[in-house]
Amino acid sequence: MTEEQRLDWLRLIRSDNVGPRTFRDLVNTYGGARAALDALPRLARRGGAARTHICSPEEAQAELKAARTRGIAMLALGEPDYPARLQTIDDPPPLIAARGDLAILNRPLVAIVGSRNASAAGMKFAQTLARDLGAAGFGIVSGLARGIDAAAHRASCDSGTIAVLAGGHERIYPPDHVELLESLLTAGAAVSEMPLTWEPRARDFPRRNRLISGLALGVVIVEAARRSGSLITARLAGEQGREVFAVPGSPLDPRAEGTNGLLKQGAMLVTEAADVIEALQPILGRGLDWPPQEPAEEPAHDGPLDAEPGNDERSRIIALLGPSPTAIDDLVRLSGTSPAIVRMVLLELELAGRLERHGGALVSLV
Amino acid sequence: MTEEQRLDWLRLIRSDNVGPRTFRDLVNTYGGARAALDALPRLARRGGAARTHICSPEEAQAELKAARTRGIAMLALGEPDYPARLQTIDDPPPLIAARGDLAILNRPLVAIVGSRNASAAGMKFAQTLARDLGAAGFGIVSGLARGIDAAAHRASCDSGTIAVLAGGHERIYPPDHVELLESLLTAGAAVSEMPLTWEPRARDFPRRNRLISGLALGVVIVEAARRSGSLITARLAGEQGREVFAVPGSPLDPRAEGTNGLLKQGAMLVTEAADVIEALQPILGRGLDWPPQEPAEEPAHDGPLDAEPGNDERSRIIALLGPSPTAIDDLVRLSGTSPAIVRMVLLELELAGRLERHGGALVSLV
Repeated sequence: MTEEQRLDWLRLIRSDNVGPRTFRDLVNTYGGARAALDALPRLARRGGAARTHICSPEEAQAELKAARTRGIAMLALGEPDYPARLQTIDDPPPLIAARGDLAILNRPLVAIVGSRNASAAGMKFAQTLARDLGAAGFGIVSGLARGIDAAAHRASCDSGTIAVLAGGHERIYPPDHVELLESLLTAGAAVSEMPLTWEPRARDFPRRNRLISGLALGVVIVEAARRSGSLITARLAGEQGREVFAVPGSPLDPRAEGTNGLLKQGAMLVTEAADVIEALQPILGRGLDWPPQEPAEEPAHDGPLDAEPGNDERSRIIALLGPSPTAIDDLVRLSGTSPAIVRMVLLELELAGRLERHGGALVSLV
Repeated sequence: MTEEQRLDWLRLIRSDNVGPRTFRDLVNTYGGARAALDALPRLARRGGAARTHICSPEEAQAELKAARTRGIAMLALGEPDYPARLQTIDDPPPLIAARGDLAILNRPLVAIVGSRNASAAGMKFAQTLARDLGAAGFGIVSGLARGIDAAAHRASCDSGTIAVLAGGHERIYPPDHVELLESLLTAGAAVSEMPLTWEPRARDFPRRNRLISGLALGVVIVEAARRSGSLITARLAGEQGREVFAVPGSPLDPRAEGTNGLLKQGAMLVTEAADVIEALQPILGRGLDWPPQEPAEEPAHDGPLDAEPGNDERSRIIALLGPSPTAIDDLVRLSGTSPAIVRMVLLELELAGRLERHGGALVSLV
C-alpha cells in the first residue's frame, strides 16, 4: 500500500457516517478509496444530508504525522502486520493504530474479560489463567478496564498482552491505567481504531468489544453480572465464530449470574488454563477458517452510474423503510427494483446519517 | 403376593452372598424364591463354600414382625406401593422397608445431595432449591447426611421428602438426625433395604446411593469435592439414565471441584429450581421409559438340572477367571460351554462369596 492510498483510506474512514461496513461497500462499489471520496458528497446529498463532513487531506495528514511521532503504526487491512484473524470478522476496521511490539498481533491470542467490579477471587483467577495461558504461548487480549481486565493484563505483561482501547491512544481510559498500559508495551501492544484524541463515549465500548473477540481464538468471561458489557463481548464472539468460555460461580453470587447464564447457553466451562488450551488446540492447528477479506482495489463493475437510482425508485424504497428493522431482501422484492439499486439507496441514506444497520442484513431509518 | 411368598423373598435376600442381582437370577432360574432357597446350599457347596448361612423362616418371621410393630411396611418389587421408578434400575431391592407416608414413593421425585462438609452458601442454596421444587410438586430424595442432605430434607419436610438409609431403620446415621427423620415422616418417608438393626458400614453408602438416584427422575449435586460420595451418586444416576444436574461454583472453591467437573462432563447447570423443572417436564409427561422388571414366578424352563455344570466345565470356567474383570461373553466363548452353564457356575461362585460382579457384564474372582 502506498502512503497516498493510506491517506485516502484514512480520509474515507474518518468522514461522517462511514463505518467499517460502509467503507467496504464504498471501496467495492467505486473501485477504491479515492473514487469513493469523490462520490461521497453527491451520495450524501442524494440521501438527504444537509451537509456532510469529508475528512480533508490536511486533517488525515496531521493524524498520520502525530501517530508517527508517537511511534504508533497505522496498519491497513491486508498488510502483513494487520492481525490476520481480525480480517475474518464481518466489520474489520480498515486501519488500526497500534503501539508496542506488533509481532504479538499475529500470535495465537485468547481474550480474558469480566466485571470492572470484580471480587478478589475473580481477579486472582484471572491472574492465574492469564499467567498459565501466557506460559503456554498465548497472548492475552483485554480491554484495560478495572477489575478482571487489569488483572489479566498485569499477569501477562511479560509473556505478552494486547490492550484494545475504546478511545484514541491519547485518551487512555481509565486514566489511572496509563502506567499499566506503558508497562505492557514492551512485550505487547495497544490498539485502537479511533482517532488519537478520541474521547471514548459509552457506545464506543461495545464497538471496541468486537475487536477484543475478533483478535482472539476464544474469549474467556471470568465474572459478569446480568446485562454487563462482558456479555456483549461474549455475544459478539459467538457471532464471529470464536470459542466462548465462561468461569462458573455460585448461584448466590450476582457476579456469576452472567457467566452461569453463558454456560447454560452452551459456553465451555473453564476452571483452569488446560480447559482453554485443550479446546483451542485443534483450531490452532487448522489455521484460519476462511481467507481474509480485502477491499478490492479494482472496480467491481463498469462504474457507479449504472446503479444510480431514479427519484421514483428512491422514494419507493424509502417509503418501505421505518423505525423497525426490515430485511434488505424484502426491500428488493417489494420495491420491484434491483439489488444494486437498493444497495445504492441504502448507502446514500447511511452516508446522510439516516440509516441504521442491524445484524442479519436488516436496516431501519434512524 | 401372599405372606408366605414375602417370607420366602425375605429369607432369600437375607441369605449369605445374595444381593438384588443374584436374587433375580435365582428366582428366574428356579421359578420362585422357595425353590431357590432349596437349591441354595447345594449351589454354594458346588461353588466351593465351606458353609453358607441361609436365613431361617424364624429369623425372617422375626424381622417381619418387628417391622410391623414399628409401623414399617415391607414392600416387594411389583407391589403397588413399591416405587415404580425404582423397579427400572438394574438391581432393584426385592424388598424395601418403608416408614411414613408411602404415597410419596410414587410421586415425581428429585434427589438433592452434596457435601457433608458444606458451606453456608451451599446449604442455603440446597434449602431454596428443595423448597421451590417442593412447591412445584416434587418430592425431595436425599441421604439424611449432615450438610447438603439435611438442608434439603429440612426445607421439604412439609412438602414431602424421602430419607434413604444406608443402615437399618433402628440404626439411624448420623444419630443426631433421628429428630429430623421423625419430623419428615408426616409428609414423607424413610426407606432402607437393610435389616432393621443393620449398622451401616462405609461400603453400604455407595450401595444406598443407587437407591437415591433410582427413586428420582433426576439428581442435583449441590456441592462436592473431588472424589466424594456425591460423585458416586452422580455416576450411578447417569448409568440409570437419570438426569444429572450440578450447581456451579468458583474454581477456587474446593467444594465446587466435583460439581464443576460434572458440568464439564455434560451435567446440566442449575442455578434455580426452574432449570430442573424445565428439564424434567418432558420426562414427567412421558411416564416410565420401560416396563418395570418383575422376577418371574413361573419356571423359565424345564428346571435347573438341565444346566447343572459338569466338573470339567466348572474347572475350565474357573481357570479363565482371575482378579481382573473378565467379560461373561468371553467366558462362554473361551470355555466352549453354553451361556446357561457359565451363568450357573457364576451363580455358584457368587453364592460361595468368591465372585465379584462389575458393571457391563464383567466378573472377577474375589
